[in-house]
Amino acid sequence: MSISTNKMNEEQALLKQLEKYTTSIAHLGHVEIGVTNLEKSVWFFTEVMGLSVSAEEGDRVYLRAWQDFDHHTLVLKKSDTSGVQQIGWRVSSSEALRAFERQFKDMGIDHKWVEAGLKKAQGDSIQFRSPAGLPVELYWEKEKFVSMDPATASKLPSHPSKYTGKGVSPRRFDHVNIMVNDVVKEQQWWTDLLGIHHRYYVQNENDVRLGSWLSRTNIAHEIALMRNANQNGALFHHLAYYLDSPDELIRAANLMAENEIKIEWGPGKHGTSGAQFIYVIEPSGNRVEIWTGGFLIFAPDWEPIEWNPEVGPLGLDLWGSKAPESYFTYGTKLL
Amino acid sequence: MSISTNKMNEEQALLKQLEKYTTSIAHLGHVEIGVTNLEKSVWFFTEVMGLSVSAEEGDRVYLRAWQDFDHHTLVLKKSDTSGVQQIGWRVSSSEALRAFERQFKDMGIDHKWVEAGLKKAQGDSIQFRSPAGLPVELYWEKEKFVSMDPATASKLPSHPSKYTGKGVSPRRFDHVNIMVNDVVKEQQWWTDLLGIHHRYYVQNENDVRLGSWLSRTNIAHEIALMRNANQNGALFHHLAYYLDSPDELIRAANLMAENEIKIEWGPGKHGTSGAQFIYVIEPSGNRVEIWTGGFLIFAPDWEPIEWNPEVGPLGLDLWGSKAPESYFTYGTKLL
Amino acid sequence: MSISTNKMNEEQALLKQLEKYTTSIAHLGHVEIGVTNLEKSVWFFTEVMGLSVSAEEGDRVYLRAWQDFDHHTLVLKKSDTSGVQQIGWRVSSSEALRAFERQFKDMGIDHKWVEAGLKKAQGDSIQFRSPAGLPVELYWEKEKFVSMDPATASKLPSHPSKYTGKGVSPRRFDHVNIMVNDVVKEQQWWTDLLGIHHRYYVQNENDVRLGSWLSRTNIAHEIALMRNANQNGALFHHLAYYLDSPDELIRAANLMAENEIKIEWGPGKHGTSGAQFIYVIEPSGNRVEIWTGGFLIFAPDWEPIEWNPEVGPLGLDLWGSKAPESYFTYGTKLL
Amino acid sequence: MSISTNKMNEEQALLKQLEKYTTSIAHLGHVEIGVTNLEKSVWFFTEVMGLSVSAEEGDRVYLRAWQDFDHHTLVLKKSDTSGVQQIGWRVSSSEALRAFERQFKDMGIDHKWVEAGLKKAQGDSIQFRSPAGLPVELYWEKEKFVSMDPATASKLPSHPSKYTGKGVSPRRFDHVNIMVNDVVKEQQWWTDLLGIHHRYYVQNENDVRLGSWLSRTNIAHEIALMRNANQNGALFHHLAYYLDSPDELIRAANLMAENEIKIEWGPGKHGTSGAQFIYVIEPSGNRVEIWTGGFLIFAPDWEPIEWNPEVGPLGLDLWGSKAPESYFTYGTKLL
Repeated sequence: MSISTNKMNEEQALLKQLEKYTTSIAHLGHVEIGVTNLEKSVWFFTEVMGLSVSAEEGDRVYLRAWQDFDHHTLVLKKSDTSGVQQIGWRVSSSEALRAFERQFKDMGIDHKWVEAGLKKAQGDSIQFRSPAGLPVELYWEKEKFVSMDPATASKLPSHPSKYTGKGVSPRRFDHVNIMVNDVVKEQQWWTDLLGIHHRYYVQNENDVRLGSWLSRTNIAHEIALMRNANQNGALFHHLAYYLDSPDELIRAANLMAENEIKIEWGPGKHGTSGAQFIYVIEPSGNRVEIWTGGFLIFAPDWEPIEWNPEVGPLGLDLWGSKAPESYFTYGTKLL
Repeated sequence: MSISTNKMNEEQALLKQLEKYTTSIAHLGHVEIGVTNLEKSVWFFTEVMGLSVSAEEGDRVYLRAWQDFDHHTLVLKKSDTSGVQQIGWRVSSSEALRAFERQFKDMGIDHKWVEAGLKKAQGDSIQFRSPAGLPVELYWEKEKFVSMDPATASKLPSHPSKYTGKGVSPRRFDHVNIMVNDVVKEQQWWTDLLGIHHRYYVQNENDVRLGSWLSRTNIAHEIALMRNANQNGALFHHLAYYLDSPDELIRAANLMAENEIKIEWGPGKHGTSGAQFIYVIEPSGNRVEIWTGGFLIFAPDWEPIEWNPEVGPLGLDLWGSKAPESYFTYGTKLL
Repeated sequence: MSISTNKMNEEQALLKQLEKYTTSIAHLGHVEIGVTNLEKSVWFFTEVMGLSVSAEEGDRVYLRAWQDFDHHTLVLKKSDTSGVQQIGWRVSSSEALRAFERQFKDMGIDHKWVEAGLKKAQGDSIQFRSPAGLPVELYWEKEKFVSMDPATASKLPSHPSKYTGKGVSPRRFDHVNIMVNDVVKEQQWWTDLLGIHHRYYVQNENDVRLGSWLSRTNIAHEIALMRNANQNGALFHHLAYYLDSPDELIRAANLMAENEIKIEWGPGKHGTSGAQFIYVIEPSGNRVEIWTGGFLIFAPDWEPIEWNPEVGPLGLDLWGSKAPESYFTYGTKLL
Repeated sequence: MSISTNKMNEEQALLKQLEKYTTSIAHLGHVEIGVTNLEKSVWFFTEVMGLSVSAEEGDRVYLRAWQDFDHHTLVLKKSDTSGVQQIGWRVSSSEALRAFERQFKDMGIDHKWVEAGLKKAQGDSIQFRSPAGLPVELYWEKEKFVSMDPATASKLPSHPSKYTGKGVSPRRFDHVNIMVNDVVKEQQWWTDLLGIHHRYYVQNENDVRLGSWLSRTNIAHEIALMRNANQNGALFHHLAYYLDSPDELIRAANLMAENEIKIEWGPGKHGTSGAQFIYVIEPSGNRVEIWTGGFLIFAPDWEPIEWNPEVGPLGLDLWGSKAPESYFTYGTKLL
């Protein structure tokens, strides 16, 4: 082998290493859900949850929490079926988007390049499906939210819009959760291909994986994968917004009671993440979690925490309440 | 009828009216409970709950919360059977104690006068039983707590002892709850004879009273009477201490989890009082409630609030969780 | 002396004792304040504070917190001068109102009987002034609030109107505070004549009374009297609404910041009551306190707590911040 | 130029790019401070703050918060002078440590390689000083904390040790803050050389930089640089631990009051980060911040937020309190 061939091989190796760094995801950016009753779902997310509308266009309404810096973190789309339409992740650089495209081509993963301008407030994106069928889009550019309305614009530079305290008023979008038949398989794909770190998981007494929680950032998870107890395929389990304190969570529960929104489960505390939660079903049938607290993960060599059958129930609720049956079986569709 | 006879009759009427004002109770003062495992119960109430010991004497341990101004609000007595030994109420004046004695004699109610000095830190008292058999004592004098220990004495005049933040650290003793077969009958006796106001109640679909909550002071209730679903007589349901915020309640739940104390129910929110709660069983089997929030009652002509069958479940938990079966059937004894 | 004369003297004594019980006040009920800018003050109390309007009539707007059971606890009256117009106390029975009238006549206290119907939602009342000139009214009847609006009526029997979470959303009206030249003299009058118990007080290094806090109910104070540092007469210092937790207080502070309402002092914690606070100035110049926590007083023989010069500053703020100069000198008028 | 030379140049460029990725820091790991009164400082950090001791060795005590996963996040070293001894940052991989060494050599930055074993619980590290003289160490390996004591070991896999609720009980170590003469210069060095992102900054009316806040992770800042108002060189301003809620912050303030630890400033809320704070001085004179809340930063292309002179005071305290003079001038030494 000639020296120059050697050099070329070394260069290939370097490029490969570099690709590893460049095909990286920055963070979960938004979720788009189908809602059968757009009007009532908009009422729920604005009046009860206290999100604000960034834009309405056609059959879509774009929403964000008061401190979400981006144009939107939730999209409601009028639909015949409720469920998840798109899970959007921001990549770490403009090169990363092209690098992912190359990688998908190399690996023969079916995908679609969507030009900037076709999606509201969003630049180029790649759409594809995970092995279990989750609809995913990667993008680099999304508009920042800038309020033009004196009633909602804050004089505080760190507030993209005023904190109004209206409704639940979460601080920010947090994560999504999907039920799948085979948690292990799906988790490995997200970790190996997309680099979303595995944070903690629950095993049952037959050593079957009941759930895995993953994140790219320092928050405990941005996507969770839970076992569908019915084993009838992938379902959208929930989306979650984040509150600043247990006290605000109690306030959220009170608002649900006054607005006749059923709390499916909670207040409880997931032992796994250490976060306190309530789950509600919004008027179109999608599950929404409101949560607060829990730990951040800083270690670059984090080892996933196992919750074995002995402590698994505490992983679900540290305080000992049992999740209702529906929690393990009910979900809306992957659209 | 002579003028003087007339005058005497008027005097009798005045005396009667006066009696009404003088035979009055000021507030719930303490509860004495029997515990089969004194050591473990003391561990629970001091290390987990964070109460402090005022005195130990024979087989009794006297405890109080950091802002209880009195010498004690809880007495643990080593016992073969767990349950309630005494429910202590302070009367509104020294004359009131004698007035109650006269009244009991007039009405033929069995009672016992206990001289000052026979009970730790307490003046003269009258002991008797309610129709359902609840052991009650009325007293006028109880020592105030004064810390002699520099480690616990606070320099703050409004703090009878330092706020240490140890364990659950409730602010103060709140109330007791008893299960009885016939709630209506027992409630009427407490209201008519002892002047403890009826605050709110729950009726089931057969118009049977499931519970009544009563207080003499402005807090929502100092004593609750709940229907024993098994109809096997009166049982001690729980005693309760008060926290300053929902956040502290969540903290209490976390401390229970670390100390392997099972939470029987909660966190939840009683619609009736508006207070947030958890219930735990202490090591000797008595139920303890930790709660926070809810409303105060100022109206001198308060009308008891009815929770009918339609909203009754929200009266139990506004957020929709169901109490476990044990909540309606399990209690310890009346000793 | 004949027997019948003796009897008559005894009867007189009994009547006197009885009067003591019957001329009693139940609780602070409302405060009526003059506002120079009615529109902006209404905006502040509804949009920022989150109170709701029960009625508007002429130049008066009637307001209440979500769990105030009465028709109103605050009245805003369009006025050339800001300040306090009336401090309303509910008496303990219908007889009590007549008993107070008799007492005022006996003592030669100037007063005015106001017939039911002349004041919105209120029965007969007696109006008079305290020695320092505070405008006071006593009443027995005030309408309960009943919502006729499905948007605000709650299905929860314990909620006179929905908890909406809008703005600061205090639970209930709490107290008023007046600056006077001579605290001791005014306090004694309130305690001796009106039976409002003295709860705690602050003395300075020259043994001058800086403040006294009084209540008839179990809450720490319903009226406070503070020394006017300028000694230029009585001024209205503030009115206060109550929140359920420190967390809600922080939320209130955040809402003030977004709405450009200056926080004069706080968050701080009064050592005296143990309550956490912020003070703001509403658009017409009246001071408003928002507070939470602190202790309740149950003892019928409560001894007022002294905060001497050594601990006095902690009585003002347990955490050590200093009140601004304005806190000791600024107030609006007694109207 | 020959093809192979071209290839070699390209390879050099690739290597350079790769270096950029590999010389990266993961997160702030610990701070070591000198304390003149070791005994009293240990009392403060354990009894008041509620940190726990991982190890004591010679004149050093190693501490951590209950959910710090590492062996320690704070080291107290008995010293003649109080101040900061070392600011420890974990790098993102074992290669990164060597890559930083190469870079320091290339750039002629004075540094010291410290072999594993010389520092308790820590692997190899590089020690050096920033331009302003801050003592910094980079390391890859540090032992995880594993409790061997049944009294503190938690059965919960996500808890490296029990949550005891003792004292302030922060969840985790958060950040350090240093006063320097020239904020801009120091900030640029940290961002350019160490890759610590610039998050927000305050400019005064003369366009002088008053402070800059930087982080490598998603938390708002791990290191802050503030202008020394006295311009007498770099000083250690404070270290900070994180709490889960505003309510816990209020509880912390109460614990300071009972333990006679002066609160220098707060409770307040930094507009910049949105976090609520108190500052106290520990017994050896170092400043400690306890804080909660605020925003996370996910955007890979985050633009530093400017707080100009008009809103700068709100950046310091959103609620309007003024920092005491000492806050801008007092600090302990760089050791």
